[in-house]
Amino acid sequence: MLTQHTDKRYEEDLKKLREDILYMGGLVEDQIQKAVSSLVDRDSNMAATIIERDKEVNTLDVEIDELCIQLLALHQPAARDLRFITTALKITTDLERIGDMAVNICERALELNAEPQLKPYIDIPRMARISQRMIHESLDAFVREDTNLALKVCKDDQEVDDLNSQVFRETVSFMIEDPHTINRAMKISFISKYLERIADHATNIAEMVVFMVKGKSIRHLKELPQSI
Amino acid sequence: MLTQHTDKRYEEDLKKLREDILYMGGLVEDQIQKAVSSLVDRDSNMAATIIERDKEVNTLDVEIDELCIQLLALHQPAARDLRFITTALKITTDLERIGDMAVNICERALELNAEPQLKPYIDIPRMARISQRMIHESLDAFVREDTNLALKVCKDDQEVDDLNSQVFRETVSFMIEDPHTINRAMKISFISKYLERIADHATNIAEMVVFMVKGKSIRHLKELPQSI
Repeated sequence: MLTQHTDKRYEEDLKKLREDILYMGGLVEDQIQKAVSSLVDRDSNMAATIIERDKEVNTLDVEIDELCIQLLALHQPAARDLRFITTALKITTDLERIGDMAVNICERALELNAEPQLKPYIDIPRMARISQRMIHESLDAFVREDTNLALKVCKDDQEVDDLNSQVFRETVSFMIEDPHTINRAMKISFISKYLERIADHATNIAEMVVFMVKGKSIRHLKELPQSI
Repeated sequence: MLTQHTDKRYEEDLKKLREDILYMGGLVEDQIQKAVSSLVDRDSNMAATIIERDKEVNTLDVEIDELCIQLLALHQPAARDLRFITTALKITTDLERIGDMAVNICERALELNAEPQLKPYIDIPRMARISQRMIHESLDAFVREDTNLALKVCKDDQEVDDLNSQVFRETVSFMIEDPHTINRAMKISFISKYLERIADHATNIAEMVVFMVKGKSIRHLKELPQSI
């Protein structure tokens, strides 16, 4: 039988899990924002700093997973907590990969900053802002078990997909007009793809939240429900 | 206290978990192979079939996750089994996303098959074969807890990365020579990227296997150890 002391420890660990996930989310949001700034402001020092700081994201990934395993090992979480903890285990992977995407953006920024700027960046910072918001809201939805907020995140993904298609068309037209731009234009289109994938990861998190709370998979639905 | 009956059920469920993961792995391997065939053989019917069959991958993802949660809920798995089950929960996500990548390959194949073929595909099928093998070996490493096989998978990732760079350079040179090829060349480079990501997912699985068995993270190491 669980002692009161163990119960208290359990509640504290659960609370820490929620806080750690939000902290990791905040860190990767900041990584994205600064990665895109390193491109827009042509700040290669910033890019190098962000690449270096990805280690922190990876450390958090390992630490939060360990906390989840400890929670499962030491306590026998009931149905609802069990689903919360197993979802947290999956969410850390998405956050860690978002961190990797921020590194990839920095790597392309370093290459692009070494050449003359092809065009002012308008859509890329927009994509970054929407993706950051999606991460933030998907994790809020997670800790508050708010499926309607999760659903909003899934819907917002379309906006990022549309911007990605727009960047694709724009870069292709640059390349057609002047083949000297091909290398740079392709790198810009890769950055756009990275941001699209970041938004996909946020969507994955939101879908997992819906599944955690409602036991219903909304992944790969042709049309999303109005509310859930 | 667990009864003998419960123990037997537990062992059976664990065995089923291993088998299900290997089955899901076999399915996504087949999805990749057929997705690339639909491109190489310009077989758009095949591409449509593979897109449709992704539903099976998604169903398996949900089912295996449920099996994991059931195992955690009904039994109190000991340290080693607990790590095995929590790793399985993470692996299903990677396999499901590999399935999504096979769908993306088919989508680009449908577009490319509607236009004259730009070039014979040599490196793309090679990348597909290596990625399939990496998935297979990463899952073998998982069920056998074989860290050396897992390490081999991590090392093989370099080969796919190199082929991806080669395809990138080749597509850029096509585009520079003849801007009419830009749209098709970009799509080929996207397919190459999808395959690179598939290999990354297999590498992620292999890294999780090392972590599960050794408790050591080899992710993001600049140089991989000779053995572990």
